Amino acid sequence: MAYPKLPSRTENFSEWYNQVVLRAELADYAPVRGCMVVRPYGWALWENIQQALDRRFKATGHQNAAFPLLIPLSFFEREKEHVEGFSPELAIVTHGGGKKLEEPLAIRPTSETIIGYMWSKWIRSYRDLPQLLNQWGNVVRWELRTKLFLRTLEFYWQEGHTAHATREEAEEETMRMLRIYEDFAVNEAAIPVIPGRKSESEKFAGAVTTYTIEAMMGDTKALQAGTSHFLGQNFAKAFDITFLDRDNQLKHVWTTSWGLSTRFIGAIIMVHGDDQGLVLPPRLAPIQLVIVPIWRNDEQRSQVMEAAQKVQALLQPTYRVHLDDRDHVTPGFKFNDWELRGVPVRVEIGPRDVAQGAVTLARRDIPGKPGKQTVALEALPQVVGPLLDEIHANMLRKATEFRDAHIYEPETYDEFREVIGRGWAYVWWCGSPECEARIKEETKATNRVIPLDQPGGEGRCIYCGAPAKVKAIFAKAY
Amino acid sequence: MAYPKLPSRTENFSEWYNQVVLRAELADYAPVRGCMVVRPYGWALWENIQQALDRRFKATGHQNAAFPLLIPLSFFEREKEHVEGFSPELAIVTHGGGKKLEEPLAIRPTSETIIGYMWSKWIRSYRDLPQLLNQWGNVVRWELRTKLFLRTLEFYWQEGHTAHATREEAEEETMRMLRIYEDFAVNEAAIPVIPGRKSESEKFAGAVTTYTIEAMMGDTKALQAGTSHFLGQNFAKAFDITFLDRDNQLKHVWTTSWGLSTRFIGAIIMVHGDDQGLVLPPRLAPIQLVIVPIWRNDEQRSQVMEAAQKVQALLQPTYRVHLDDRDHVTPGFKFNDWELRGVPVRVEIGPRDVAQGAVTLARRDIPGKPGKQTVALEALPQVVGPLLDEIHANMLRKATEFRDAHIYEPETYDEFREVIGRGWAYVWWCGSPECEARIKEETKATNRVIPLDQPGGEGRCIYCGAPAKVKAIFAKAY
Repeated sequence: MAYPKLPSRTENFSEWYNQVVLRAELADYAPVRGCMVVRPYGWALWENIQQALDRRFKATGHQNAAFPLLIPLSFFEREKEHVEGFSPELAIVTHGGGKKLEEPLAIRPTSETIIGYMWSKWIRSYRDLPQLLNQWGNVVRWELRTKLFLRTLEFYWQEGHTAHATREEAEEETMRMLRIYEDFAVNEAAIPVIPGRKSESEKFAGAVTTYTIEAMMGDTKALQAGTSHFLGQNFAKAFDITFLDRDNQLKHVWTTSWGLSTRFIGAIIMVHGDDQGLVLPPRLAPIQLVIVPIWRNDEQRSQVMEAAQKVQALLQPTYRVHLDDRDHVTPGFKFNDWELRGVPVRVEIGPRDVAQGAVTLARRDIPGKPGKQTVALEALPQVVGPLLDEIHANMLRKATEFRDAHIYEPETYDEFREVIGRGWAYVWWCGSPECEARIKEETKATNRVIPLDQPGGEGRCIYCGAPAKVKAIFAKAY
Repeated sequence: MAYPKLPSRTENFSEWYNQVVLRAELADYAPVRGCMVVRPYGWALWENIQQALDRRFKATGHQNAAFPLLIPLSFFEREKEHVEGFSPELAIVTHGGGKKLEEPLAIRPTSETIIGYMWSKWIRSYRDLPQLLNQWGNVVRWELRTKLFLRTLEFYWQEGHTAHATREEAEEETMRMLRIYEDFAVNEAAIPVIPGRKSESEKFAGAVTTYTIEAMMGDTKALQAGTSHFLGQNFAKAFDITFLDRDNQLKHVWTTSWGLSTRFIGAIIMVHGDDQGLVLPPRLAPIQLVIVPIWRNDEQRSQVMEAAQKVQALLQPTYRVHLDDRDHVTPGFKFNDWELRGVPVRVEIGPRDVAQGAVTLARRDIPGKPGKQTVALEALPQVVGPLLDEIHANMLRKATEFRDAHIYEPETYDEFREVIGRGWAYVWWCGSPECEARIKEETKATNRVIPLDQPGGEGRCIYCGAPAKVKAIFAKAY
């Protein structure tokens, strides 16, 4: 049985992506347009993402809670920019229990409004602050163009919401969470990201400032992989969230919100994947090592399977291991199958390995012979940990090199137009929304991020030539 | 500052319950009728429930997945009993993205239909079976009378869904999951339950057989704490889920589903709580030990706080510990506060304890002096584990004794009427739905469970006097 090939990434990146998601059984299309089913392999990846983030949130004092799915429509109208940003995307419940509702309800597209409402009840004094909340859940936004994981009507995410007594504290929180996303992306997902600020045109509806971690996909498009918003007192004023401060004055709180969604799975696929399929970062991979036993006859089978089970028992307590004991497919089929699914390390055990008391390890990140090594059984537990770390480091290095090789610094708008389409343009920008709008219209590139890390000095805006104090990254984006 | 008292359980159980939920900050009312906000303390309890169950599901080969929130309305019409059971409770989305939808969508009340639809795409051969799936998520049912945790429009749960090649396998799975719920209730929540079958009138809409674990609350009402359904081929036929078996015949699969929800938190509150508030089972309690430092002056304060932090550091790696270092409330207030919140063990540290190198442990399950002991600091880590186990065992014993003391075996219908209202009636029942319906009409008691464990032999139906082969439990219920 020949293993069906994927479309190549260079020929058709979009179709390669869809096929990888479907064939690796990460997700499938649901019967409702634009909705997805996250299948067990995809959900196990999301659970590992959840754990890696949740650990970080709790270590910084946040607590999880659950706010309702259904929000009175009128809540959205209280914050002007928020209603403009979200109204076109709302899913509306008009009937319940066989009756028409007096007030229609929206399925939450995000929870600032409902949490703001509850805070106005809960917060009385400075002693009730800060509120450091997070919620893992589903939200719905009625998107027109959808793509599995990247943009679906319903998606899964975490949304952090915090309220503080001072502006400074809220700004610190916004930045702390941005850095946590950066740390997560780099150290768990092996994805290099550029932390920075969004322009006024690109920020979240209702935010004072939006920060993002921006990542480059394998086709050089940009993807906003996580966002952290300083909301100022916008929602505090809209929902009248006040507190009695130490100085006995009644004040509005300062709030933040920050989110990372199942879209991040799309980033993992597009940053690391190759023409054979997924390449999953070892710290998040649902299966870190897959054991593939190889035999030709029944005698070999029993020896090999015995050794395979021993290896499984050896690694199981520390690593996520799967033994592929399927009888109806060949080892070659299994190799392809687990490569498609992006398992970081394949453990091959054949009769010769058994005779030598060894196994062969094959790395997913380095295809073919250069990624293979033979390891004695007793050395295995010591070898695997460092090997997974090395794979992580190598994936991060490759992704960083690829990204850096595709960030250009065009000096003229002509050069700018030329580099957009094969990478990012890192350019001086005067700060005007008009220049951004024109660039978008003429090149489809948007202002992705104003990196926190700035060169300093001054230049001339890539579009209008006016004096410019910041450099920004423009790119086509998901 | 006097600590406000709760209503007593004997005077007004319902109001006691509401006050406990609100004041212990487990949950609050949402702005939409019948919806709730689960606050951090309540959600932490739910997370511990989730972990205890998820561990058991994964150990028995189940995988988590996520199916969409929105289901085409027409899906419900495919299974006759299912549509009758759920139609009156659906929340309907009619508009999305500012437009009227061609087909209205229901917010899932449960996911048999959408999972059935996906299985009909995924399952081809016996090699694709069994499918052992579980989903953690939210569902919406438009209930008329609601109560925090016990019955809310939106609630949180897990719903397991499995598909099998044979009837026997599906029946085994149904029973396996029922036993897992029983094990969880007894060994994690210290709640004794009676596993058994639901009558035809009380079963899940679409099931062939529904099994339940039934628990007695502190007011002697019954609560269905978890259910496991054998669905036969009902959904397989409605959604045409077929597979090619080993014998080359195309067959319909056999399915099961099983669920446990945030309602279980209501059971924990009502089974264990007392007039001081919550009494949380130690294995699920968000905080297992709370350290309360006691001092009168600044000199004492620094000594006591140092000791308190040492104790915290000592216990933190193994237990969920909280140090209550609030300065603006008295130790007495804190005692009341943590009793209300049901923390299993209070660790008191005063100047005398510091001088002795000891702490005082106070048990929540045994109020006052009999529940107190002084323990030397160095012995603490050895004492706490067994103490928490003893608290668990004591809570389970107390709940079992209370329940057993309130299960009656009336011999006549007059006796039956008399015992209903102060407990459960364990009686012979002829099996006819008519007798059940009459009993319900006349006494408000429903057939809660036909226990798996039957006495054998024969008796006479408590209502009609006809020969009866099974004994069932009738009770008023939540």
